[in-house]
Amino acid sequence: MLSINKLTLPKNKNISVSFRVWFFAGNEKFLGKGRVELLQKIEKFGSISSAAKDMKMSYRQAWQMISEINEHSELPLVEKKLGGKSGGGATLTDAGKKAISTFKEFEKKVADFIQEESKKIKI
Amino acid sequence: MLSINKLTLPKNKNISVSFRVWFFAGNEKFLGKGRVELLQKIEKFGSISSAAKDMKMSYRQAWQMISEINEHSELPLVEKKLGGKSGGGATLTDAGKKAISTFKEFEKKVADFIQEESKKIKI
Repeated sequence: MLSINKLTLPKNKNISVSFRVWFFAGNEKFLGKGRVELLQKIEKFGSISSAAKDMKMSYRQAWQMISEINEHSELPLVEKKLGGKSGGGATLTDAGKKAISTFKEFEKKVADFIQEESKKIKI
Repeated sequence: MLSINKLTLPKNKNISVSFRVWFFAGNEKFLGKGRVELLQKIEKFGSISSAAKDMKMSYRQAWQMISEINEHSELPLVEKKLGGKSGGGATLTDAGKKAISTFKEFEKKVADFIQEESKKIKI
């Protein structure tokens, strides 16, 4: 006779996989999902403080991240603009835009690969 | 004339990529690097408390993780052994061994893919 346990249905018919990737420059973290999001928001708002606020982090934290990013890049990814009526702001450089697209494209390739491979998982 | 900044060497000639993957059962986390490590240590030590100690977590935390793992699996991955001279212990079931190897193989495939793809990154 089957015990009640044997009658429960398999729960794990489908396993899905989530992932994160990080770009490193040498031993130092260069870009990850959070940093890329910050860069995207700087591009959107043209301001580090607005981007920081939108990400619920302090200006100090955001600036710290940007310094680390810039430090590990041949060319700066973010540039501060001084003066002007609006009291300055920040822009993404061409290198910054390229870094975002490179990261996003890489992430997409990994996502596609994982999606295909995860169909084969049987546990 | 070149400024001193322009003379600094490119820092980012090589970008390396690190990653993490997680197996989900529905919306619930099923396996990740940490959980797999715990399962491997249970297999090694034959004991949840020894495995927990080696991972610097409490027995309670370890048991909580195992309960969650078992809960989302058709078959339990870890079984407690009761009694005996040693006062019981825990073993990995065949399903547990298979889950570890499935996760490890998947991780390896992703690592190989990322290693190849990361050679193409230019920032």
